[in-house]
Amino acid sequence: MEENLLASVHSTVFKESESLEGRCVKIEGYDFNQGVNYSLLFKSMLSTGFQASNFGDAIQVVNEMLDWRLADETVEENCDGDERDPAYRESIRCKVFLGFTSNLISSGVRDTVRYLVEHHMVDVVVTTAGGIEEDLIKCLAPTFKDWIIPIFDQMLKEQIEEKVSWTPSMVIARLGKEINDKRSYLYWAYKNNIPVFCPGLTDGSLGDMLYFHSFKSPGLIIDIVQDIRAMNGEAVHSSPRKTGMIILGGGLPKHHICNANMMRNGADYAVFINTGQEFDGSDSGARPDEAVSWGKIRGSAKTVKVYCDATIAFPLLVAETFAARR
Amino acid sequence: MEENLLASVHSTVFKESESLEGRCVKIEGYDFNQGVNYSLLFKSMLSTGFQASNFGDAIQVVNEMLDWRLADETVEENCDGDERDPAYRESIRCKVFLGFTSNLISSGVRDTVRYLVEHHMVDVVVTTAGGIEEDLIKCLAPTFKDWIIPIFDQMLKEQIEEKVSWTPSMVIARLGKEINDKRSYLYWAYKNNIPVFCPGLTDGSLGDMLYFHSFKSPGLIIDIVQDIRAMNGEAVHSSPRKTGMIILGGGLPKHHICNANMMRNGADYAVFINTGQEFDGSDSGARPDEAVSWGKIRGSAKTVKVYCDATIAFPLLVAETFAARR
Amino acid sequence: MEENLLASVHSTVFKESESLEGRCVKIEGYDFNQGVNYSLLFKSMLSTGFQASNFGDAIQVVNEMLDWRLADETVEENCDGDERDPAYRESIRCKVFLGFTSNLISSGVRDTVRYLVEHHMVDVVVTTAGGIEEDLIKCLAPTFKDWIIPIFDQMLKEQIEEKVSWTPSMVIARLGKEINDKRSYLYWAYKNNIPVFCPGLTDGSLGDMLYFHSFKSPGLIIDIVQDIRAMNGEAVHSSPRKTGMIILGGGLPKHHICNANMMRNGADYAVFINTGQEFDGSDSGARPDEAVSWGKIRGSAKTVKVYCDATIAFPLLVAETFAARR
Amino acid sequence: MEENLLASVHSTVFKESESLEGRCVKIEGYDFNQGVNYSLLFKSMLSTGFQASNFGDAIQVVNEMLDWRLADETVEENCDGDERDPAYRESIRCKVFLGFTSNLISSGVRDTVRYLVEHHMVDVVVTTAGGIEEDLIKCLAPTFKDWIIPIFDQMLKEQIEEKVSWTPSMVIARLGKEINDKRSYLYWAYKNNIPVFCPGLTDGSLGDMLYFHSFKSPGLIIDIVQDIRAMNGEAVHSSPRKTGMIILGGGLPKHHICNANMMRNGADYAVFINTGQEFDGSDSGARPDEAVSWGKIRGSAKTVKVYCDATIAFPLLVAETFAARR
Repeated sequence: MEENLLASVHSTVFKESESLEGRCVKIEGYDFNQGVNYSLLFKSMLSTGFQASNFGDAIQVVNEMLDWRLADETVEENCDGDERDPAYRESIRCKVFLGFTSNLISSGVRDTVRYLVEHHMVDVVVTTAGGIEEDLIKCLAPTFKDWIIPIFDQMLKEQIEEKVSWTPSMVIARLGKEINDKRSYLYWAYKNNIPVFCPGLTDGSLGDMLYFHSFKSPGLIIDIVQDIRAMNGEAVHSSPRKTGMIILGGGLPKHHICNANMMRNGADYAVFINTGQEFDGSDSGARPDEAVSWGKIRGSAKTVKVYCDATIAFPLLVAETFAARR
Repeated sequence: MEENLLASVHSTVFKESESLEGRCVKIEGYDFNQGVNYSLLFKSMLSTGFQASNFGDAIQVVNEMLDWRLADETVEENCDGDERDPAYRESIRCKVFLGFTSNLISSGVRDTVRYLVEHHMVDVVVTTAGGIEEDLIKCLAPTFKDWIIPIFDQMLKEQIEEKVSWTPSMVIARLGKEINDKRSYLYWAYKNNIPVFCPGLTDGSLGDMLYFHSFKSPGLIIDIVQDIRAMNGEAVHSSPRKTGMIILGGGLPKHHICNANMMRNGADYAVFINTGQEFDGSDSGARPDEAVSWGKIRGSAKTVKVYCDATIAFPLLVAETFAARR
Repeated sequence: MEENLLASVHSTVFKESESLEGRCVKIEGYDFNQGVNYSLLFKSMLSTGFQASNFGDAIQVVNEMLDWRLADETVEENCDGDERDPAYRESIRCKVFLGFTSNLISSGVRDTVRYLVEHHMVDVVVTTAGGIEEDLIKCLAPTFKDWIIPIFDQMLKEQIEEKVSWTPSMVIARLGKEINDKRSYLYWAYKNNIPVFCPGLTDGSLGDMLYFHSFKSPGLIIDIVQDIRAMNGEAVHSSPRKTGMIILGGGLPKHHICNANMMRNGADYAVFINTGQEFDGSDSGARPDEAVSWGKIRGSAKTVKVYCDATIAFPLLVAETFAARR
Repeated sequence: MEENLLASVHSTVFKESESLEGRCVKIEGYDFNQGVNYSLLFKSMLSTGFQASNFGDAIQVVNEMLDWRLADETVEENCDGDERDPAYRESIRCKVFLGFTSNLISSGVRDTVRYLVEHHMVDVVVTTAGGIEEDLIKCLAPTFKDWIIPIFDQMLKEQIEEKVSWTPSMVIARLGKEINDKRSYLYWAYKNNIPVFCPGLTDGSLGDMLYFHSFKSPGLIIDIVQDIRAMNGEAVHSSPRKTGMIILGGGLPKHHICNANMMRNGADYAVFINTGQEFDGSDSGARPDEAVSWGKIRGSAKTVKVYCDATIAFPLLVAETFAARR
């Protein structure tokens, strides 16, 4: 009987397994015997497994995002005359939404963001309050307060005299203009007319400055309604362009970009880089497929999440995509 | 020679260790041979180690927060007449800031929050957009849009006719009034005059409703400057009260409460419950000692971070603190 | 045209959603207005969402594991006479495999483990080297070495004189006998004849003691082949019992229990409590469904993973299951 | 009075901060305007912050580990004649312990490990059962069982006839010899006489094969006592060499290498790459400073932990260290 049992255990453990030949990527890493060639090394990540494969995918998704032209699509029956012009179609590229949390502007990733914005490689930026003020403080250091209060004074004057209705993105553009420093990504966003959205602008030092200013010179109003109109408009009016999302970290920047893209039935490309987990049900850790279920990303989209600190993954990703194309 | 080596290895490994007798809690868990007694079981967590000990600490910190009375402090030389009155001093309690991310209002923790707000056990609430709209949607379900657009119409009318300057916290209070549903924590916040702050109010369905409303009836303004004044004021004007922070999850609610408390030299009690990590430098995962280094928490404060999903830890924490006292 | 676009956005966002009525648990938390009743509170976790729901599930799965009797199953055509006897069938219960990492024996969870082993509520234990030595050191403190070397001497003598072939589980049982201390779970495992498996027994202080002993009195052999036969045998010979797995943490204990259960086509119940993640491809963070894909857990099994530090979750789980039944 | 309060808040928030000039690395990222130069990009990681800085540190620590020669140290008074010879001193290099969990051999990191072992760039290897069997299975695929059983038969014969006392590391070396495949890191470990330790060798398919073999041909013994003697010996007999640890993932490989190095008063260099956390008290997530407190790493050692999936970090680390030197 022991023998029967053993035979049964044996057949349980040695079930014939299906061949996956040709249906899966064969797992294989880089062979250093060929020397150190980073281009090949990053290609090999695709077949290395786990987060290396996700990182390899992220390189592919971003490159597809950057390759896309309207000319690649068949001309729709009912499209305008302009949209039938091949040269025009060749000029229409994917609209790229870049989001990041404030810690990344505290880090050297700021220089990578600045590079992308300087060369207008991204079209819409979303961040949190720290992602704005850290960029400025790094240019100004301890004089931040002496610099900003007169700007608020001037903005209040324009509000009263010229009926300017300020929104967070308008305030940010103004600060980018005033900082006038090529090390600042906000300066380049201003120069290149790239909107930077940050509805929670008051959650940090900028808020504290506005708090003090509200005693010294009360009355400045920063309206968030016009900015949600502008932000959603960026997604809604993206047609006939495709949209792509590159989001570093979680929180508001991730949710805000996804939510806006829901208004256009979802983004076409999505790369998330963060170390957030799914298990607590926060949006920060939610995977691209969760966003697909909400219509924030199209079912047909190319998507990937890389579980990695963005300070490591993002500069390398830019090196193999945006920067490799200049 | 082998022998000498062995002797040396021996003395390396068997270094006399210092006795920790009396200087550390002795690690000891609950003895189920005494039957299941939850009160004793939760007490035993203090000496169980790792996150059980942190959870046991959290119970202690919240209970100290709730025990505190101004009467416990020595009367300061230069204090007002009122503040010398023992009855008055007995009545002055710790001001409690409660923060949470939106996923917790999606979960059944919403009922725990509602209980705390219903009985005015907390004084200031901070959340993200989802933490507002989910509370309302759970009362209204698919009719959310039909319900809210007329409220926005009315708010716009009041803005024009009565010169009301709306802020996110004012909008939230109005929605709490209108929802008029005892299952809603926003209803109770409105009833009990507990401010609910949410500077990024537009980051979600509410934003989408405001987006549609801005086409239908343009002009509604929601100003975040007056709200940072109000939020920081809650901390700055807390004296002679102590302040305590209970923060579930990371992101804006955590940072916003800590930042406001920095304006008063730091909170006196802090309980963080989240699963965020330190290694990526985000504020979400930062420990209480990091907040102490910024002056967001006092050096003398009682603080603890519990690494646990709040859906498990928070209802149990409330059971052993707030709810145990009614 | 703006109007057409808006209408299209509108219909995109306000897609009629399917009703989930009756198909999902309604999310609802505990209502503290009914006072603090832990039994009801833990029941409410099932409908609280996220890890609270997983914890509520874990209570259910363990209770089903403990409820199960062979008498619940229909009598199979070809079964033995004994197995047809109703009284016998009523007496046959699920075989419970308990696994845990060493940090839990460093913590107060040790007392919970001791309770389960003392009352023979579990049938097979798997841990790592620290999970053995910490239990002993807590009884012996600095005299661990003086205590264990003579035991090894005696074991070597028995090996030579009585041809005893030692395995890790035999060494552990011997140490449980020798420690002779009711605070030790190994003592109770010895008393109750519950095998404790630990193939990597040498990875820690016990290994260091064996290292020193190998110079002083060379020759002691601890064989791991007989133990894998014994461990796999526990699973293979479990029929007609069902098997259940309760595994705290990851690493070898998790893998070892799952691997053995693969030999019988998978376990029938599985509760994993750990904070490991999937993204790095380690078995530690693998979810029950990954184990199902390997045949380590049956497709029909009741399984749950609770993402929570076991020092919080496990004593509470035992309180609502094993301890509630005495 | 409001003014006094505001002044006090003002001075609280605008405390003069100490200058960190010259005491800290200035945070600065890579400037892509200089083109993509990976060597400079990886150097810039040191000043990028968060895990990029840790990764930059890891490159430095490994390079220092590889640079070290006994010739760099002053000649000790009481050292042997040999050890005074400059040529000898130049030849004595750091002894490198490499540890990794089994998932990494499932991934393409296996090829990086093979490269290091092939060129004898590491001296001692520690892994888990899966880290052995996956290397073999990748060469053999479905015929693993037909291949290994005859080897076990032969080993049993040698045990009986030649009194061979098998240990896990001896079994592994034998399998490395038999596999005779240049794609296998175990083959190269055998060729280069690099010991591979794995006390829990039976926890996986190899264990299942030994289980079946124990019925077919009982009697094979695999002893773990001689292997802990060998493993600790690698550390204890390392003098006058320094030792370095490179450990990918947690679990047994991490603990085993650290524990052995405790026997020599700690390692001199330590690089941990894993995503484990501290909060649950497991050794897997413990940081280098925790190991210093145990004497597993010297207080003077260069150490770093990189929180990153090793499939991304390790090939890049090897590219900038080991592979850059050939």
